[in-house]
Amino acid sequence: MSQQAVDGVPRRGKVLTLDNMNPNVKRVEYAVRGPIVQRAVQIEKELREGIKKPFTEVIKANIGDAHAMGQKPITFLRQVLALCSYPELLEDDKFPSDAKKRARRILEACGGHSIGAYSASQGIECIRQDVAAFIERRDGGIPSNPDNIFLSTGASDAIVTMLKLLVCGEGRDRTGVMISIPQYPLYSAALADLGAVQINYYLDEDKCWGLDVTELKRALNEARQHCDPRVLCIINPGNPTGQVQSRKCIEDVIRFAKEEHLFLMADEVYQENVYAENCKFHSFKKVLFEMGPEFSSTVEMASFHSTSKCYMGECGFRGGYMELINLDPEVKAQLIKLVSVRLCPPIPGQALLDLVVNPPQPNEPSYTTFTKERTAVLATLAEKAQLTEQIFNTVPGITCNPVQGAMYTFPRITLPQKAIDEAKVCSIYTPHQPDLFDCTKYEFVCVCVNRKRVRSQTCSTV
Amino acid sequence: MSQQAVDGVPRRGKVLTLDNMNPNVKRVEYAVRGPIVQRAVQIEKELREGIKKPFTEVIKANIGDAHAMGQKPITFLRQVLALCSYPELLEDDKFPSDAKKRARRILEACGGHSIGAYSASQGIECIRQDVAAFIERRDGGIPSNPDNIFLSTGASDAIVTMLKLLVCGEGRDRTGVMISIPQYPLYSAALADLGAVQINYYLDEDKCWGLDVTELKRALNEARQHCDPRVLCIINPGNPTGQVQSRKCIEDVIRFAKEEHLFLMADEVYQENVYAENCKFHSFKKVLFEMGPEFSSTVEMASFHSTSKCYMGECGFRGGYMELINLDPEVKAQLIKLVSVRLCPPIPGQALLDLVVNPPQPNEPSYTTFTKERTAVLATLAEKAQLTEQIFNTVPGITCNPVQGAMYTFPRITLPQKAIDEAKVCSIYTPHQPDLFDCTKYEFVCVCVNRKRVRSQTCSTV
Repeated sequence: MSQQAVDGVPRRGKVLTLDNMNPNVKRVEYAVRGPIVQRAVQIEKELREGIKKPFTEVIKANIGDAHAMGQKPITFLRQVLALCSYPELLEDDKFPSDAKKRARRILEACGGHSIGAYSASQGIECIRQDVAAFIERRDGGIPSNPDNIFLSTGASDAIVTMLKLLVCGEGRDRTGVMISIPQYPLYSAALADLGAVQINYYLDEDKCWGLDVTELKRALNEARQHCDPRVLCIINPGNPTGQVQSRKCIEDVIRFAKEEHLFLMADEVYQENVYAENCKFHSFKKVLFEMGPEFSSTVEMASFHSTSKCYMGECGFRGGYMELINLDPEVKAQLIKLVSVRLCPPIPGQALLDLVVNPPQPNEPSYTTFTKERTAVLATLAEKAQLTEQIFNTVPGITCNPVQGAMYTFPRITLPQKAIDEAKVCSIYTPHQPDLFDCTKYEFVCVCVNRKRVRSQTCSTV
Repeated sequence: MSQQAVDGVPRRGKVLTLDNMNPNVKRVEYAVRGPIVQRAVQIEKELREGIKKPFTEVIKANIGDAHAMGQKPITFLRQVLALCSYPELLEDDKFPSDAKKRARRILEACGGHSIGAYSASQGIECIRQDVAAFIERRDGGIPSNPDNIFLSTGASDAIVTMLKLLVCGEGRDRTGVMISIPQYPLYSAALADLGAVQINYYLDEDKCWGLDVTELKRALNEARQHCDPRVLCIINPGNPTGQVQSRKCIEDVIRFAKEEHLFLMADEVYQENVYAENCKFHSFKKVLFEMGPEFSSTVEMASFHSTSKCYMGECGFRGGYMELINLDPEVKAQLIKLVSVRLCPPIPGQALLDLVVNPPQPNEPSYTTFTKERTAVLATLAEKAQLTEQIFNTVPGITCNPVQGAMYTFPRITLPQKAIDEAKVCSIYTPHQPDLFDCTKYEFVCVCVNRKRVRSQTCSTV
């Protein structure tokens, strides 16, 4: 409690100050919406006010927000959501019968047939069944149990919840969590918030941001000196690096997790965003089960998916799920209790997820339009991925790997020595952050999502 | 890491077990969806299977879930949500012009004019402006700044976020948080999860569950022996006790918070659920400002509201907000960073909140229907409140206070000595929980939401 004596009377400061607030929260960094984004917003404002700059527009590429960038929603998804929101429309001839059928099924599963009721905390049961059926189709028939599916408020919610379960111990016994660098900063933010130990493993820019088990081993062995590494987080397709892991790589990772007794967290929210011709998405679950019972009955895993990416891009609905493999039943009971405290994920997001995992079928009236819209979105994303790579590689000082998947590229920008020197003496930015400095001072049209430098004197931005 | 040697080969157990998971999560209790609810679900199943019982229906009263209990959604709210979900309907003559106007305004404030885009993490700006205007109207013109409004995923989300900011210290310096008993178990669950110290203050059943500052002082002084009390949580109207605080009581609480240097958290999600004729809702903010600058410029406070209760009952949308008063600007910057990690609250919930704070006006076409529906819902809730109280008081062994507000009653049930004795020796329940035992064994139609006993040999359930 900060107190100052004024005229002999003790004067109290605020109850809550930077000095006495939760120290873990202070340690959280979240560059996706950090100082560079704030500077970008300021530049936009300056442009609107008529201030002259060598460009006329700011394209915010700090986050995968498809609709904000002009991508149109898929008609079928929105029709069903409108029907669920205002069931009087079920009598309206404008809506196709399959959209009405989906809406009726969702409403029947809701308390009082209203999406305004709470659902079970784990999510609406028939939607979890549809998710399980979707996973089985995707993975060539490998069984999925709806009891192991937890719906969530976007994938972020599920990822943070799983990390929370896994964190314990103090000092050298504190849980360590391995994350890829470059990373999606949700991971480092959640680990700081939970007071867990972040263990960095580096993706190899020279091998198209590939993951190598030798590097995992190095990172793990170093971390064992000072913490208890228990979790390995993988993002595939990669965010923000855009690589797609080969089947061989996934097998290696699973073998490594088993040997080293690590809980696997597979962030697979970009599973339909694969553009490169020689690449294919392999789910960790499928590979795990195809490696035989020695692996499929032992390796503990959570896999995450979302309605925010792929062809839907419905970020605003905050829909998502996780599937749990080989989770200890007692821990699962604790998880069910934990998610119940927040009551339930938003029902519109749950409904949307149901449509994503149970889209129109060839014999249904919405199939043709749905397929056309879906294909068009994915084709546009593939085209943009290629264009981004090509254009970056024409700029002197910038090199960029092929974008195999996801929604990002992570080019290398070689800064002039003068800029680096200036950053070091500039007081408004933290020294030794020339990449951040560069973006804010030189007003790049691209905005950094990740400021972790891969090599000295270079930096990578999106 | 649990290891057993089998045939000389060390055999590893699960990576994640009850023994090595996050101990704070294990400490979390959440009775609203705990063992009694599970038993109720089982009884429902048994009834469906034709098992004979002395009743034919289970009424789940464990949670305020209006739509699940048959309350119909308000037409205007759902019309606007349908328009936002599927903007093609903006051309449809079936929808009134004011619904379209609201939908257009919300869509224009969304990235790419789609509710599928992320919003600012603090919430859509024009909605925060509408919330501030709503608060100003409610509080007779006392200014509200949209920059101090944070939209949230239901009120629970905002409450947990604020508690997270406030928790720090170890041992005797650990943050203590004062909560009312009987309580809404979100509070105890969140405090266990955050490892904060729960400080119980007891509401007075004999004074219609009133709050007395003498009891606050007792609880605070006792707690100061073993922790650092920094936060006072108030629920008004009361959950689960249904009392409505007088203006005098609120003034006393504010004075106490100032004197004792406590951060005030005012859970006001039932602010429109006031039924008793001699009761009125007074917002903590209004009373604070009417007490003069000595209080209004110093007492730090967060006030919470939600779309889940009142006349809307739209729990499934997970909409809500908090307003912050006198928060340290540096702490606010940390809060903005923290909420950004979860990207944004669901947009349908934000849109719904906008309609709640900006409902149809007398000159608008939806006004009459809206007002009729709203009045009817509130009248029905008032009638049910009275009925519940009356019926409980006719049952031998049950007494019940008047339900002044909110959506709950918290009757006292005097258990026969024989039942208490049986509970003590019954191995499947924790001993000394005869209230829980009673519910599960004797299959009461009412389900406990809160098992904290107020006096020995009696228990209070909803």
